[in-house]
Amino acid sequence: MIVILRENPEKKQFDNLVAWIEAQGVIPHVTQGVHQTILGLVGDTAKIDIDLLQQMEIVEAVKRVQEPFKNANRKFHPLDTVIKVKDAVIGGGNMTVIAGPCSVESEEQIIEVAQKVKASGAKLLRGGAFKPRTSPYAFQGMREEGIKLLLEAKAVTGLPIVTEIMDLSQLDLFADVDVIQVGARNMQNFELLKQLGKSDKPILLKRGLANTYQELLMSAEYIMASGNENVILCERGIRTFETYTRNTLDISAIPALQTLSHLPVIIDPSHAAGIARFVTPLSLAAVAAGADGLIIEVHNNPSCAKCDGMQSLTPDGFDVLMKNIALIKDAQLACK
Amino acid sequence: MIVILRENPEKKQFDNLVAWIEAQGVIPHVTQGVHQTILGLVGDTAKIDIDLLQQMEIVEAVKRVQEPFKNANRKFHPLDTVIKVKDAVIGGGNMTVIAGPCSVESEEQIIEVAQKVKASGAKLLRGGAFKPRTSPYAFQGMREEGIKLLLEAKAVTGLPIVTEIMDLSQLDLFADVDVIQVGARNMQNFELLKQLGKSDKPILLKRGLANTYQELLMSAEYIMASGNENVILCERGIRTFETYTRNTLDISAIPALQTLSHLPVIIDPSHAAGIARFVTPLSLAAVAAGADGLIIEVHNNPSCAKCDGMQSLTPDGFDVLMKNIALIKDAQLACK
Amino acid sequence: MIVILRENPEKKQFDNLVAWIEAQGVIPHVTQGVHQTILGLVGDTAKIDIDLLQQMEIVEAVKRVQEPFKNANRKFHPLDTVIKVKDAVIGGGNMTVIAGPCSVESEEQIIEVAQKVKASGAKLLRGGAFKPRTSPYAFQGMREEGIKLLLEAKAVTGLPIVTEIMDLSQLDLFADVDVIQVGARNMQNFELLKQLGKSDKPILLKRGLANTYQELLMSAEYIMASGNENVILCERGIRTFETYTRNTLDISAIPALQTLSHLPVIIDPSHAAGIARFVTPLSLAAVAAGADGLIIEVHNNPSCAKCDGMQSLTPDGFDVLMKNIALIKDAQLACK
Amino acid sequence: MIVILRENPEKKQFDNLVAWIEAQGVIPHVTQGVHQTILGLVGDTAKIDIDLLQQMEIVEAVKRVQEPFKNANRKFHPLDTVIKVKDAVIGGGNMTVIAGPCSVESEEQIIEVAQKVKASGAKLLRGGAFKPRTSPYAFQGMREEGIKLLLEAKAVTGLPIVTEIMDLSQLDLFADVDVIQVGARNMQNFELLKQLGKSDKPILLKRGLANTYQELLMSAEYIMASGNENVILCERGIRTFETYTRNTLDISAIPALQTLSHLPVIIDPSHAAGIARFVTPLSLAAVAAGADGLIIEVHNNPSCAKCDGMQSLTPDGFDVLMKNIALIKDAQLACK
Repeated sequence: MIVILRENPEKKQFDNLVAWIEAQGVIPHVTQGVHQTILGLVGDTAKIDIDLLQQMEIVEAVKRVQEPFKNANRKFHPLDTVIKVKDAVIGGGNMTVIAGPCSVESEEQIIEVAQKVKASGAKLLRGGAFKPRTSPYAFQGMREEGIKLLLEAKAVTGLPIVTEIMDLSQLDLFADVDVIQVGARNMQNFELLKQLGKSDKPILLKRGLANTYQELLMSAEYIMASGNENVILCERGIRTFETYTRNTLDISAIPALQTLSHLPVIIDPSHAAGIARFVTPLSLAAVAAGADGLIIEVHNNPSCAKCDGMQSLTPDGFDVLMKNIALIKDAQLACK
Repeated sequence: MIVILRENPEKKQFDNLVAWIEAQGVIPHVTQGVHQTILGLVGDTAKIDIDLLQQMEIVEAVKRVQEPFKNANRKFHPLDTVIKVKDAVIGGGNMTVIAGPCSVESEEQIIEVAQKVKASGAKLLRGGAFKPRTSPYAFQGMREEGIKLLLEAKAVTGLPIVTEIMDLSQLDLFADVDVIQVGARNMQNFELLKQLGKSDKPILLKRGLANTYQELLMSAEYIMASGNENVILCERGIRTFETYTRNTLDISAIPALQTLSHLPVIIDPSHAAGIARFVTPLSLAAVAAGADGLIIEVHNNPSCAKCDGMQSLTPDGFDVLMKNIALIKDAQLACK
Repeated sequence: MIVILRENPEKKQFDNLVAWIEAQGVIPHVTQGVHQTILGLVGDTAKIDIDLLQQMEIVEAVKRVQEPFKNANRKFHPLDTVIKVKDAVIGGGNMTVIAGPCSVESEEQIIEVAQKVKASGAKLLRGGAFKPRTSPYAFQGMREEGIKLLLEAKAVTGLPIVTEIMDLSQLDLFADVDVIQVGARNMQNFELLKQLGKSDKPILLKRGLANTYQELLMSAEYIMASGNENVILCERGIRTFETYTRNTLDISAIPALQTLSHLPVIIDPSHAAGIARFVTPLSLAAVAAGADGLIIEVHNNPSCAKCDGMQSLTPDGFDVLMKNIALIKDAQLACK
Repeated sequence: MIVILRENPEKKQFDNLVAWIEAQGVIPHVTQGVHQTILGLVGDTAKIDIDLLQQMEIVEAVKRVQEPFKNANRKFHPLDTVIKVKDAVIGGGNMTVIAGPCSVESEEQIIEVAQKVKASGAKLLRGGAFKPRTSPYAFQGMREEGIKLLLEAKAVTGLPIVTEIMDLSQLDLFADVDVIQVGARNMQNFELLKQLGKSDKPILLKRGLANTYQELLMSAEYIMASGNENVILCERGIRTFETYTRNTLDISAIPALQTLSHLPVIIDPSHAAGIARFVTPLSLAAVAAGADGLIIEVHNNPSCAKCDGMQSLTPDGFDVLMKNIALIKDAQLACK
């Protein structure tokens, strides 16, 4: 961490600053410029509250050298985190596909889709029970009943299930859910993150619509600092000026997050594109770029889906996609 | 609402679509172009789920003509909503100032600041007890104890208090809080919004960092549709590519939200700027543009504040600002 | 095109509007709602100036149904445009790689790089002679001398050359250049685009940092409307809030632009990433997503490059990449 | 400037780096951390090419402490630049209003508008002759003829004129133009900026739609480094996710640019809002925030304007606005 002082700092303020820094267990090295004095802080700066430094009158700017996240940081955990969910394995060079409908709508629907995506090679079943919708007048999900139907589909197919939590008050309903999803809009719901950190279930953490890699990793850090190391990072498209696609898939998030962190990185091409026929090229791109997994919306009757039908594949379309994914994954493994 | 069909729609799909639209209690008027067929939907389209339409195979695009919010819409409620909080009045052409520290830090601090901002003319006291922080290692607020200290400051000064809720589980602690704040990161925490809609307390709803006016008003709609009409909209700066300021104050939000909605619109220049010396020009700009109020951070010792000291005014600086606000408000009232 | 009128339009204004629309050779169909009157315009609306409509007092909003571009629109030109540059072919399902240094720096450098990228399979040579730099104090390129060295490298290797024009006054120097590049910052330099439309050389048009697909295609339309149909679209990363990468590669631009337009779409992973070790995953992703080509920075000594060395591959790294590209391209061709 | 090295740098690379830095006339001070070595560069770092440093293998990151602009920097020129254009004065605490139509359309139009805005108190006349339009099919301005009409209006009213240049080839036509405007899309047209730096006319430089303060000031630096110190900075709204207004006025640009630079800062509320009835609140906000001037679109018949009529005031509306501006300016001067 580097602290840049204002020109001509007062001696007393300077001494106070040095004392404060030393009290944090860190050593300040001074570089005296013509116009500027700079302190280089040496030691474990991860837990220094950068805001406290920045607001001091004597301080012009503070710049981090090390990332502010520790548990999620590859520098301190060089090996890939590999998360096992029953028979599924996420991370470590595998390509694991999660599939299912945007929303659970009925017993027939979720069981039919579950059976079909399993037959095509999906390793986990997704399905929304609690649905975050921009409008209070839009379908809000089957809620508790939706969770029950997911558990039925799990019983029938043996697929572990992934579903989204929207509020801590729903946590008890997630006892038999295998992976708890935190949606993009909740990425910085810090109370929720802290509580999920006390769970031992894997958490699928989606990147917020306008959040940076560092903010995503700081949210992972909230979960990990509370004791749960099983975090799966998910890029699902960010908001940009382009509105032709629903969001803009940030494909660079794959190598970038894998460089910064040891956590698995999966891609949600369905929400990124918002258009079913773009799901295939985006999925193949993600595989080629080295993603650890994909989470894909599949519906048995997309044009009647209660939500996000526009971006859902049919089971047949998904089956073709899975074969293509395998072709690209083989090529990607042969690379270098 | 306008529905644009794909070229050469199938007769059967077309008839199904017309039947579906009529079942929503809305009448479709058909315009037949050379390349395109267009349906103009006439009637109450506010509760039609636009997603359901968009995903139909026959539909190319759907465009809203009317806004998707009703309770918050000025078209249906032409008069300004005026919210009374004890002696304070928010909305209807008044200029109401809320002030106080970012975080409650101690009894002395909050009481001293409360007394000083009251003396300068603030009508409500703000102070954070639960603090949403990007890093789990940063100060998280005094939490329950912070609420108690705010209530003490209220008892001493008579100022009604505004403080932020971060999770539904905290709601019981807010029984004596006068205005409940929903932070920018929780603007789309829909479960929280629904529950606050069952309260009768005014809700200060902050715009999210990357959200549109319409999304903000849809979040207000969540609260209002659940029964609570006392919503105060707050623009606190949005995220843009400019990082010199902490956020970018969207000053146009004042006339825009006042055009779209009857709800009061207040401005938070402190979070928008992130730099104390910009709080004054931004506050004056907001007054000149016709804002209904301001929420300003004031700290008795900014350079030792536990959070956001960089953007806090001293009580003396705030006192000068209040005098300037009065000058600009008088001029603004004389305009036209 | 759909025109939505304000409530209770005046009869005289309405008649004027209808007359104006008919004078454009287009027929207005009226849909009368309870709150709203809507005109659906039927006919060739591509050349109607939407601004002129929007500003009329009687008009609340105008919404396009058809895209405002015609020459670049796949609807009117269903077949892929395939551009031949000597032996290189761009478009139509090929994967064509353009490579070379960011800047031309010396005879030895450009000839060495040209020979090596040709040996690895590049079909065109890139190299900057005129360099757009944010700072007036940064290296501005070898300019006229740089063009000469590129032509030498072309003579030695037979590779056609691609280089950027920054101003119309430089056009004479481009007589023997094979493909003229318009940089991201000049995407809306309309005078330049019009003039290049009078040339018969292929134009490599880069998307601006904050521009939409439609804006990019309207800039292509400027060139095409002036008579030059040989436009190559290039996605090179857009500006987002993420600063870890130099820009954010919008991988969805590949299927999206190929859907909207018949023009070839190539990807510049070097400027998108800004980091050499991300160039490979981004290139492979682009190939898997169906890009028509790549433009990649290669430097014989990246750590001494006069510009953008951080994002340049070595010739050896490029050679490995080309082999990997071939593997993924084969797999992509086997898909579906 | 601070240079952060990779862990365990090689001795030889380190020595080379130190030698390179010293060759730039700057002294490197070394801070040796446990994980990190940091060099603080002391001396005139403004002209060091940061890219050259960043790409060196031994370097992890480079962070600027001083701004990269010099001529435009208030640190080196503490006093406000005041630009005189005939009788008009821009900068130094004045509030100077530039007004006129978006486009020059006819002799009658421009002369009538010029006379009216002069009567209301405008000090300069604006009017577009060359118009940058997204679509090649939209009105492109009267071009050379438009300049002639502006000069006529100048002859009749005595108002100095401001008009936009789009390409260097047009420069001869600007011989009698008083202030040359560089539009937002040309903010980084560096060849144009360099050439305008050789002129002695004031340059009104508009901020690009997605550019930062620093980028705007670097573009000013291009002009100033070529010898022309008469640069007027103009904030005209930036692109954000909000599309209800045409652009988003960044009101903080006023105090921010005035802090960073000594150049005058003016505001264009017309392009920022895109909606005539928001021009007044945005103008008053700009005055209250301390802007040095405003540039406002006024048209004698907005609903028939050939471009941007939606955002134009009528002469009567402008007259009211000027009176309101005076009221707010008086109050702003009374502040503090």
